Amino acid sequence: MKQAPLSIALVQHAMGPDPYDNRQASIDGIERAAAAGARLVILPELHASEYFCKYHDPGLFDLAEPLDGPTRRQLSEAARQFGVVVIGSIFERRAPGLAHNTALVIEADGELAGIYRKMHIPDDPGYNEKFYFTPGDQGFVPIDTMLGRLGVLVCWDQWFPEAARMMALAGAQILIYPTAIGFAPEDDEDEQRRQLDAWRTIQRSHAIANGLPVVACNRVGFEADRSGAGRDAQFWGHSLIIGPQGEIIDEAGLDAEVLVAELDLDRSDQVRRIWPFLRDRRIDAYQDLLTRYRHF
Amino acid sequence: MKQAPLSIALVQHAMGPDPYDNRQASIDGIERAAAAGARLVILPELHASEYFCKYHDPGLFDLAEPLDGPTRRQLSEAARQFGVVVIGSIFERRAPGLAHNTALVIEADGELAGIYRKMHIPDDPGYNEKFYFTPGDQGFVPIDTMLGRLGVLVCWDQWFPEAARMMALAGAQILIYPTAIGFAPEDDEDEQRRQLDAWRTIQRSHAIANGLPVVACNRVGFEADRSGAGRDAQFWGHSLIIGPQGEIIDEAGLDAEVLVAELDLDRSDQVRRIWPFLRDRRIDAYQDLLTRYRHF
Repeated sequence: MKQAPLSIALVQHAMGPDPYDNRQASIDGIERAAAAGARLVILPELHASEYFCKYHDPGLFDLAEPLDGPTRRQLSEAARQFGVVVIGSIFERRAPGLAHNTALVIEADGELAGIYRKMHIPDDPGYNEKFYFTPGDQGFVPIDTMLGRLGVLVCWDQWFPEAARMMALAGAQILIYPTAIGFAPEDDEDEQRRQLDAWRTIQRSHAIANGLPVVACNRVGFEADRSGAGRDAQFWGHSLIIGPQGEIIDEAGLDAEVLVAELDLDRSDQVRRIWPFLRDRRIDAYQDLLTRYRHF
Repeated sequence: MKQAPLSIALVQHAMGPDPYDNRQASIDGIERAAAAGARLVILPELHASEYFCKYHDPGLFDLAEPLDGPTRRQLSEAARQFGVVVIGSIFERRAPGLAHNTALVIEADGELAGIYRKMHIPDDPGYNEKFYFTPGDQGFVPIDTMLGRLGVLVCWDQWFPEAARMMALAGAQILIYPTAIGFAPEDDEDEQRRQLDAWRTIQRSHAIANGLPVVACNRVGFEADRSGAGRDAQFWGHSLIIGPQGEIIDEAGLDAEVLVAELDLDRSDQVRRIWPFLRDRRIDAYQDLLTRYRHF
């Protein structure tokens, strides 16, 4: 049976120091997306705050909120009000001393369909995430919604073909990455261009390797380091909607934007018939993917 | 200790019905590559013959040759004569009824450094490889040469992130793909463009995910189906040299060409410091990569 095309929206926006304003920007984006006909709306990673991982500060754990905290409540209300499925992202307080970087999948009736706790955690200059986020312990499990089975992953996960494959093997119909990535101001233009192009390319590759659409919603804007010990960040936007052969269907620019496109989820089946990679995986010979390094 | 840049050459050429002519074209290419200063020379997949997998014909097993057959002997002689390491590719006769699609790695002194038997075997209209080639049984093991540790894979392998990762985890310093891929004449221009771009993208992604250079050497030319039961093939060339951030260093066109470029193998270490993906792989959570499908 042929499915109707799925209209999806990526709400690419900037964040400032006030969580109230940030949540309002997210809700405004959801409203605009719904008005444009979107049924699935995706927000950037950690959209309720500035990207606080620029430096280490135990005080910033105050930003964390439980799964039923203010961001979740506001997203559920918006999902219900506008009748859309929403992918949000929070700094999740799970217990004292235990926090995660967690994506929320909220049904159009406001119920929580499921969560995904970021599995791969970066730690680089300006991206001190290992200080804040405990790596996810739930594995790579897609989340069923009224719109289909969604393979929700988060940011750094997008560099790992393993994560995309695990979701595809579990029947994900689309891969979804809320993300927060930007230019390091000290890099020259060539390096900045290479990094942005690598980021687009690795996501396109997940679509190709797995024969399914991939979307990534990034934040935008300049966020100054307020500590003097971290780094400024210039988030690069460029939220992407990619088809199952890796073709770019639509792409945002450097500024705030609601990007809307239609996805033909039936096309994955056709693409996998001409590129039947799942048929030919050598599962008898991949054991060492479970090792850190292979010493020969 | 800083290594000198490695000059590599991809000999992109066409094949006709006469194996003698094809071998001569390969040897001419090796000579031109060496004259241009290359120390590592890579030939396309199955360069001694037309791409015979366009259709099923038990008679075509006559094309298979042992590891010390005429192609190997001629490549060894050329490697020694021109003082270069050569990556060749043969239809390997291992035993009656047992053949492989095998890459040969030949040292500059003419000795066989090692072989790689293609692990992932395609089978699609016009690419009936499962009829001819038994899947490799040696796994993903790079081959040590005087020029470094080479992660040699073959054609269809290039669509599988698992293969690239296995080689990177085993210390491969460069991924090398002899290949034979082309346009299906019945596809429209948009589909042909998407396929070529997907092919470039997936290979760039292996460089990005693993922080190492990737090269692919493809054949060119139109090869008519001689059976009436198979398909014509228009091989698309576009042999690629890719740096460790996925950047395209050089790329051939649709015609025969010897593509030469210098690779800075030291750059991989620097790239992996800013993108330390090997550090963060969730080897505790990848078990299901060894399954065919995950049923939830």
